[in-house]
Amino acid sequence: MHDRPSPTDLERFLSVAFAITDETRTLVRAALDRGFAHRHKADRTFVTDVDLAVEDRIRERLAVAFPDHAVLGEERPDRAGASGYEWVVDPIDGTLSLRHRVPLYGTILALRHRGLPVVGVIDLPGLERRYHAASGLGAFRGRERLRLVEPESVDDEIVAIGDRRQFVAIGKRDVFERIVAGHPVVRTYADCFGHALAIEGSVGAMVDFGLRVWDVAASEVLVTEAGGRYVELERRAIPDGAETYDVLFGKPAVVQHLLELLGSGLET
Amino acid sequence: MHDRPSPTDLERFLSVAFAITDETRTLVRAALDRGFAHRHKADRTFVTDVDLAVEDRIRERLAVAFPDHAVLGEERPDRAGASGYEWVVDPIDGTLSLRHRVPLYGTILALRHRGLPVVGVIDLPGLERRYHAASGLGAFRGRERLRLVEPESVDDEIVAIGDRRQFVAIGKRDVFERIVAGHPVVRTYADCFGHALAIEGSVGAMVDFGLRVWDVAASEVLVTEAGGRYVELERRAIPDGAETYDVLFGKPAVVQHLLELLGSGLET
Repeated sequence: MHDRPSPTDLERFLSVAFAITDETRTLVRAALDRGFAHRHKADRTFVTDVDLAVEDRIRERLAVAFPDHAVLGEERPDRAGASGYEWVVDPIDGTLSLRHRVPLYGTILALRHRGLPVVGVIDLPGLERRYHAASGLGAFRGRERLRLVEPESVDDEIVAIGDRRQFVAIGKRDVFERIVAGHPVVRTYADCFGHALAIEGSVGAMVDFGLRVWDVAASEVLVTEAGGRYVELERRAIPDGAETYDVLFGKPAVVQHLLELLGSGLET
Repeated sequence: MHDRPSPTDLERFLSVAFAITDETRTLVRAALDRGFAHRHKADRTFVTDVDLAVEDRIRERLAVAFPDHAVLGEERPDRAGASGYEWVVDPIDGTLSLRHRVPLYGTILALRHRGLPVVGVIDLPGLERRYHAASGLGAFRGRERLRLVEPESVDDEIVAIGDRRQFVAIGKRDVFERIVAGHPVVRTYADCFGHALAIEGSVGAMVDFGLRVWDVAASEVLVTEAGGRYVELERRAIPDGAETYDVLFGKPAVVQHLLELLGSGLET
């Protein structure tokens, strides 16, 4: 289609996203040095001062760079835009980790064009790593191109999984238990850290259930541009009018192995 | 006793350990850049070229600095020494992580004097973090003194646990499952990464079973010097004449909470 973003457009979107995550890293580090407050949200997860400050900064920068782009973020109301472009923002993915100073949290920025993911960025300030991808331009960690390769043995791969309570909350404890018992090494590398490890192939796959749109918005383009397979197992409406997502992605052979592990269980 | 190590002695031991881990970090980074081979050991865990090169370097440096100290390491035969001092060395703790380039592996150096732990160092090259402690001198991450504080709520704490297969291998799958099901957020932060997080209080406690002596040798002095509680739940002889260790350590209130979780189960 004539209005799909060109490589030049995509490079510009990425360059703004990089400038934004340079700034948000600085905000996160300052907050860690200074300390920050947190409170429970209605869904019993946490929000901190940092989440709010980071999302506000992202929104300010996006509004200046792309005044006609819509913005959907975890902590603030949606902003509409007529361009067909929509940014999806998770200012701090892994708030529980950040709050406890486990360095495995991150900031997620994704851009969709007419509903299709076109740019994905995961920035991990605690590890000083940034992953990015754009449709047709490849996936990268920093300047290094990422290309997933199939493992010699699926059983030697680590599988990453979200926190057990994400599965329990949506009535899928059995999925968590089947994966954990069915594969030799399964580690709860929750949030965007697990996503990033799957994108670069350090884990064979990530199994993450009960997510909101901002948790997954960057991962599809990142993993597919890296040569992996992205499977959305289920999308469900939840009471507030939003949806939750159950996803599984990574090296195609490992994704297939886990689908079989889940499928065989679902038939019993 | 007159022959206990003085603070001056301890500072000298630490300073040699720091110089050694500066070198081993360089070895690990060079190996990651260059790539490295791995093979299965008899116990079905992995050893890599890096493990062997790092242990050899540590042994060379210790032999020069402390010719009368004994050395016990994971990969090479024991060296005897008549001084009463014994270094316990795990060149790469988290070989599976290193092999897959998950940045949560480390190098462990511990010194025991007449069997008692006096110095502990955990170095995490992938995170550029080093933790150290010496008896009576406190625990530190880099230059920052670590002092564990009790949580406002035990339920808000993350609990770290070793890989499930460590528990399964020693017939204690029930312990793994009881912890994972009994506490709100339990994450498999295996190996010295989980230990380090417990020492600095990012997780409330670490539950690690089926360990060898080099896996735990640094942690007792680190966690007790940080103001935490270290519990050795069981030590068992294994066929090759060695022993395995089941340990639980961290903030005292979280350790107590987990002991109760395990104890109530053991009584049923």
